[in-house]
Amino acid sequence: MSFPWLAPAPSGWESLIQAELDSDIGYGDFSSAVLEDKPVRWMIESQANGVVCGVGVAAWLLGPCEALIADGSTVSLGTRILEGKSSAPWLLSRERTALNALMLLSGTSTLTRQFVDAVEGTKAKITDTRKTIPGLRALQKYAVRCGGGTNHRFGLSDAVMIKDNHIAACGGVSECVNRVREMVGHTMVIEVEADTLLQAETAVEAGADIVLLDNMDTEQLSEAVSRLSGKAILEASGGVNLGTVRAIADTGVDVISIGALTHSAPSLSLHLELL
Amino acid sequence: MSFPWLAPAPSGWESLIQAELDSDIGYGDFSSAVLEDKPVRWMIESQANGVVCGVGVAAWLLGPCEALIADGSTVSLGTRILEGKSSAPWLLSRERTALNALMLLSGTSTLTRQFVDAVEGTKAKITDTRKTIPGLRALQKYAVRCGGGTNHRFGLSDAVMIKDNHIAACGGVSECVNRVREMVGHTMVIEVEADTLLQAETAVEAGADIVLLDNMDTEQLSEAVSRLSGKAILEASGGVNLGTVRAIADTGVDVISIGALTHSAPSLSLHLELL
Amino acid sequence: MSFPWLAPAPSGWESLIQAELDSDIGYGDFSSAVLEDKPVRWMIESQANGVVCGVGVAAWLLGPCEALIADGSTVSLGTRILEGKSSAPWLLSRERTALNALMLLSGTSTLTRQFVDAVEGTKAKITDTRKTIPGLRALQKYAVRCGGGTNHRFGLSDAVMIKDNHIAACGGVSECVNRVREMVGHTMVIEVEADTLLQAETAVEAGADIVLLDNMDTEQLSEAVSRLSGKAILEASGGVNLGTVRAIADTGVDVISIGALTHSAPSLSLHLELL
Amino acid sequence: MSFPWLAPAPSGWESLIQAELDSDIGYGDFSSAVLEDKPVRWMIESQANGVVCGVGVAAWLLGPCEALIADGSTVSLGTRILEGKSSAPWLLSRERTALNALMLLSGTSTLTRQFVDAVEGTKAKITDTRKTIPGLRALQKYAVRCGGGTNHRFGLSDAVMIKDNHIAACGGVSECVNRVREMVGHTMVIEVEADTLLQAETAVEAGADIVLLDNMDTEQLSEAVSRLSGKAILEASGGVNLGTVRAIADTGVDVISIGALTHSAPSLSLHLELL
Amino acid sequence: MSFPWLAPAPSGWESLIQAELDSDIGYGDFSSAVLEDKPVRWMIESQANGVVCGVGVAAWLLGPCEALIADGSTVSLGTRILEGKSSAPWLLSRERTALNALMLLSGTSTLTRQFVDAVEGTKAKITDTRKTIPGLRALQKYAVRCGGGTNHRFGLSDAVMIKDNHIAACGGVSECVNRVREMVGHTMVIEVEADTLLQAETAVEAGADIVLLDNMDTEQLSEAVSRLSGKAILEASGGVNLGTVRAIADTGVDVISIGALTHSAPSLSLHLELL
Amino acid sequence: MSFPWLAPAPSGWESLIQAELDSDIGYGDFSSAVLEDKPVRWMIESQANGVVCGVGVAAWLLGPCEALIADGSTVSLGTRILEGKSSAPWLLSRERTALNALMLLSGTSTLTRQFVDAVEGTKAKITDTRKTIPGLRALQKYAVRCGGGTNHRFGLSDAVMIKDNHIAACGGVSECVNRVREMVGHTMVIEVEADTLLQAETAVEAGADIVLLDNMDTEQLSEAVSRLSGKAILEASGGVNLGTVRAIADTGVDVISIGALTHSAPSLSLHLELL
Repeated sequence: MSFPWLAPAPSGWESLIQAELDSDIGYGDFSSAVLEDKPVRWMIESQANGVVCGVGVAAWLLGPCEALIADGSTVSLGTRILEGKSSAPWLLSRERTALNALMLLSGTSTLTRQFVDAVEGTKAKITDTRKTIPGLRALQKYAVRCGGGTNHRFGLSDAVMIKDNHIAACGGVSECVNRVREMVGHTMVIEVEADTLLQAETAVEAGADIVLLDNMDTEQLSEAVSRLSGKAILEASGGVNLGTVRAIADTGVDVISIGALTHSAPSLSLHLELL
Repeated sequence: MSFPWLAPAPSGWESLIQAELDSDIGYGDFSSAVLEDKPVRWMIESQANGVVCGVGVAAWLLGPCEALIADGSTVSLGTRILEGKSSAPWLLSRERTALNALMLLSGTSTLTRQFVDAVEGTKAKITDTRKTIPGLRALQKYAVRCGGGTNHRFGLSDAVMIKDNHIAACGGVSECVNRVREMVGHTMVIEVEADTLLQAETAVEAGADIVLLDNMDTEQLSEAVSRLSGKAILEASGGVNLGTVRAIADTGVDVISIGALTHSAPSLSLHLELL
Repeated sequence: MSFPWLAPAPSGWESLIQAELDSDIGYGDFSSAVLEDKPVRWMIESQANGVVCGVGVAAWLLGPCEALIADGSTVSLGTRILEGKSSAPWLLSRERTALNALMLLSGTSTLTRQFVDAVEGTKAKITDTRKTIPGLRALQKYAVRCGGGTNHRFGLSDAVMIKDNHIAACGGVSECVNRVREMVGHTMVIEVEADTLLQAETAVEAGADIVLLDNMDTEQLSEAVSRLSGKAILEASGGVNLGTVRAIADTGVDVISIGALTHSAPSLSLHLELL
Repeated sequence: MSFPWLAPAPSGWESLIQAELDSDIGYGDFSSAVLEDKPVRWMIESQANGVVCGVGVAAWLLGPCEALIADGSTVSLGTRILEGKSSAPWLLSRERTALNALMLLSGTSTLTRQFVDAVEGTKAKITDTRKTIPGLRALQKYAVRCGGGTNHRFGLSDAVMIKDNHIAACGGVSECVNRVREMVGHTMVIEVEADTLLQAETAVEAGADIVLLDNMDTEQLSEAVSRLSGKAILEASGGVNLGTVRAIADTGVDVISIGALTHSAPSLSLHLELL
Repeated sequence: MSFPWLAPAPSGWESLIQAELDSDIGYGDFSSAVLEDKPVRWMIESQANGVVCGVGVAAWLLGPCEALIADGSTVSLGTRILEGKSSAPWLLSRERTALNALMLLSGTSTLTRQFVDAVEGTKAKITDTRKTIPGLRALQKYAVRCGGGTNHRFGLSDAVMIKDNHIAACGGVSECVNRVREMVGHTMVIEVEADTLLQAETAVEAGADIVLLDNMDTEQLSEAVSRLSGKAILEASGGVNLGTVRAIADTGVDVISIGALTHSAPSLSLHLELL
Repeated sequence: MSFPWLAPAPSGWESLIQAELDSDIGYGDFSSAVLEDKPVRWMIESQANGVVCGVGVAAWLLGPCEALIADGSTVSLGTRILEGKSSAPWLLSRERTALNALMLLSGTSTLTRQFVDAVEGTKAKITDTRKTIPGLRALQKYAVRCGGGTNHRFGLSDAVMIKDNHIAACGGVSECVNRVREMVGHTMVIEVEADTLLQAETAVEAGADIVLLDNMDTEQLSEAVSRLSGKAILEASGGVNLGTVRAIADTGVDVISIGALTHSAPSLSLHLELL
């Protein structure tokens, strides 16, 4: 298996990971200095149920090795993910950096998959937000995709999100959407945040491509869907957890966006063992 | 309040946060471009109970503002953390980056404080590990301190940790500790990982400064304490959670190290509001 | 005039410009070393007709100064752009770096404005491409906006462009658009490149948001508009110059994209004078 | 052909190009994600007449490939420059970055060659200036060499250029040249800018190694040559274009420096095709 | 000999050395441009007696080559260190960068070895300080180890050093040590600086792990040893040179720290020759 | 005294020094954390005779302060260099980084001045080489200037140095000088290395601007001067120390280049004291 990334892979993560490794080793790994410099066989295996993500990062760090499963695969206790043969001190100096990345990304993929599974059979897509960890957005958004979710906008310049403050500054939703539409290119969509049904309808009339239905209960969401479905993409957000997501999806919204995927996913337990 | 960091503050985080901001804004924040460039008053407040951390990062990003409470302070729903007055489009382009850092670090401080509170009255210190997020170790270890915990080693070169593999490569604990001791400077301590009481005793005899009692139950830990207390620092690790930590601390160990503080702490809910 | 950027401004350009300055000065500006370190009054003025862009870069480099006109303003021979008072050797060491940036960006704004003026009265928007200079895409795309144009996608991850090769690999336009749509988030649009009218119609039927009409003559473009207008955004590209752009716009296409804006715009003549 | 650079090659360009690629791919190339990951044969060919430059950059980006011609070679419509075989999605994600660099540098080589050809048979060398694009000076100056030109100073610390302001600050040309000569090392030459013949003569008497004859007409240049040839290197600058350069060269000046080579050269049309 | 570093090797030095090389070559090595691009055999040999360090840096720069001796080996006039076969212009462009690093680090290893030899038979370890060259601390501290010395703390966060100012701010040594101990983790040691015997005794009573006996004469040092040996690690510092170090060691101190190892070691003469 | 640099100052050193400071502080300065955050008055003074250099670096690091003397000034035991008032913990965290830079650069200025003084009254200039410390060339060459020396070339692209290997590859000195002259711009000088008088004469005839008289004794140097003075700049190199430099200068050579200025200068003793 030559390339353990799920297409499309993000770019430029190598410098982040290399810097982390360099910082960890620092002035030298004094513990490993007593190890003989000879090759040992090793593997990484899961210690819990989940969805793995970041195999490419670990493979890049730990040298010639074989990825037994690809990003996005489900794992359970004891599932082998990677196997390799590397110099012992070299391997042990890099183990922690590799596991830290793999456990973090797999945590997000795992949580995403739980949400995706919870809404199975509905039309709702599970989507991330910009509530990501400094320096890790590209990798975390990749992890969301590996978990079966889709990505909301990547940053402030690839889609427009109009909130109350923006509307107030422009003198109304319609005026605001028009002014933004004039300024942005033809590849950019405009989303408007709505706290009430009335605002949602106004946004659609003003020409919003997407309406963010913020912190609405399922009754409000259902009403929004019945009035606006097909006129704009409807995105539900706020108060979403594994206990509530199915009911939200059943209202018929197109998209459910969840900050916790990238700011509060517990890491997936994994360890590296010598064979 | 001029300097909202708890001493000692880590160094060099500015470039990480600046890069995150630059990446988020990218080609321009098209949503904010419709806002008038005039100053607005704003505040950040907590939406949950916890311990705040990262006020200095947010203050650095959001411009002239007043930190109402310092890192390490407890907050509850509605506690105001920062207040300021800034240009509206400038503020809104930076809001997400500031909140992402503040919520992440406060999450770790909050979880740390819960563990610290749980062991109150015992001698056990709550300590972190090297299981941190790529790029964020210095800030996360700072957050652990703000939560009342202490820091384990920062990387591979500031303390020695000898595990099974190292011992095997050297021909015994005693030989291994001696060889490492010869090589390292006089400011560096040596920790040895032990899975059994016998290994722990051997480590102490070999001259280990710290013994890591790995995945032992409370009975084993108590026995280790009774035999080895005062001869080396005793650190418990493995299977530690809020339900088990008190019993572990009650065994009399000196230190309890917990990976979850930095790899699985949910973020603390906070938001920025215009006044 | 406090902030000489046209909203939204790109982010992160300071490090590029600082590096350029550091590289130019290098081991020291030996010529300026004979100058007395006393303040002199200076101005930057245009030596030709055009549209100025990059005033914020020059102001950042040259210290306390007053921007007399904003980015996007038309200038002619002798129009003053910036005035300031700075230490003579400090100023002269920075003059070239400032002018190089200002002349380059103004060149793109000027060429863009010429195209925009040429299609005045039509619905066609003048748009850039990804044919930019390494390291300068954010500033160049900003310059296009200052010239009155709009931006095409900023990179490979903020919009989809499907070409012949992609279609061949998927087994047909429809299949390809569907697969991409499934994978991307709800904020991302899909553009399909078409060399013939038949391909254009197929793309629209397959659900493309935008169709790129590549290298078609005005007859073909008119036919495409009559058949597809309102069903997808129609973008003309290829063989566009100041002599042909009006006729292309008159066909009724929505967007005309032009690589030359960012890869072949001659710089605008400007100079810095001491007063 | 193992190394497609013309000696001497500049150093350190890899990080610029890698950063550009990383920025373009960003969160992932969603369009290429539908392509099968299998090798395809490809080539880059010229779509116009010119001089190619930057083959080494493209070869570095596009993987194992064969450079059919070297930097500095003349090309015409249909000349093949590079051929290779690479993974399809990998190739298409890198195509634009490679072509952008190659087209830009070839544009400068092409324009330089036109000036060089125009002065053929005279002693005048065609030389660049410091009017370069931020971040690209080393590559652009290399492109000038590939076009048959030579390089003026690379930055402020490798040669001295004394202008009016410097002279005024020192109290005369002679004093100024003496003071600079005292300060600089023995490998550094001193150039003095002259607007009149008198100034030029004064500069030579003061010991200037090079005199910049700024914005003089051919009559003045001829007179300067007749009076000063052999006493200093004579460099003509200002108002140089393809229509005037021959007459300037015919005056007998040693060097003609032209800012347009690096600030206003249109890019050379090239494209990448799958075979 | 595959890996010419003495374990443990520092991490992250490649970017420093690459940047140095890129800076040296800059716009191109014009001297080497006249050389034929064909392989030549070369070697690096010592021109003086000393201890070599940095072989791994030179090998990394100069391409496929064989390290004949490892870091830490003694060399004398004519000892061959490295041999290789590389492209002539490529080699000569990199020679200076390689030698500069190798000569610098070997200088520190050589001086360290001289001190180590001078105290042979005593228990005193020769140790470095934080008086290092900006950017080179990790490599210099490695060189100290290659010379047979050990390392003092690497920076401000891996061990505590309490001086007069700190004590004054806390209200006494004991109070200060207690406060620091409470704050730092269990892997960190505390050193206290003492100018007098009384201060040294107070420090030990306060619980210092290490006492720095600053600028004491051998009589004072002997007295300190007789009173405090075994209660804390005793480190002598100040006024240490090759003429005094033996007498200092003979007092029985555990550690002698010497700033000159890293701030004033003359480089070791080495040269590269073609064969 | 507002700007404590001797013109011309090098550029871009701030990032090196900031990185050094960040690396030193790292996870936090635990020793300073017990200090009260209140301002203290401090000064830096010399502890030996020498020439100070790097005052601007120290002033930049240590905050608002007054430079009492400028770079290039002679100092003796007790000479105050800088005075300031800064927060105590902030100051002590930065003290070492500031002193390390100041002591290193002053060491080079001091050694340079000793050589300059030794040749006083002769025409010989004392010059550095490319034998510098990785990352510090710009600052070290500045220190040489502060000591009264001049700079040899800064890197491989700002002047040409032709050695035996280059000559062999070209088929003779004359051919080699001609080929290089053709390739380089008019601001670049050509130096040829000569081991014998015959080679030196050949180099001059071939058109070398400078001849490096390598490892010649004073008799040979005198002979070279008598034959070649005025025809090329004559540079002596090799075997130069404070005992031999005067005799070398007395031969009448123009320039004496000395690697030790930048690779073996002992640092100048300085310390920071609270007042």
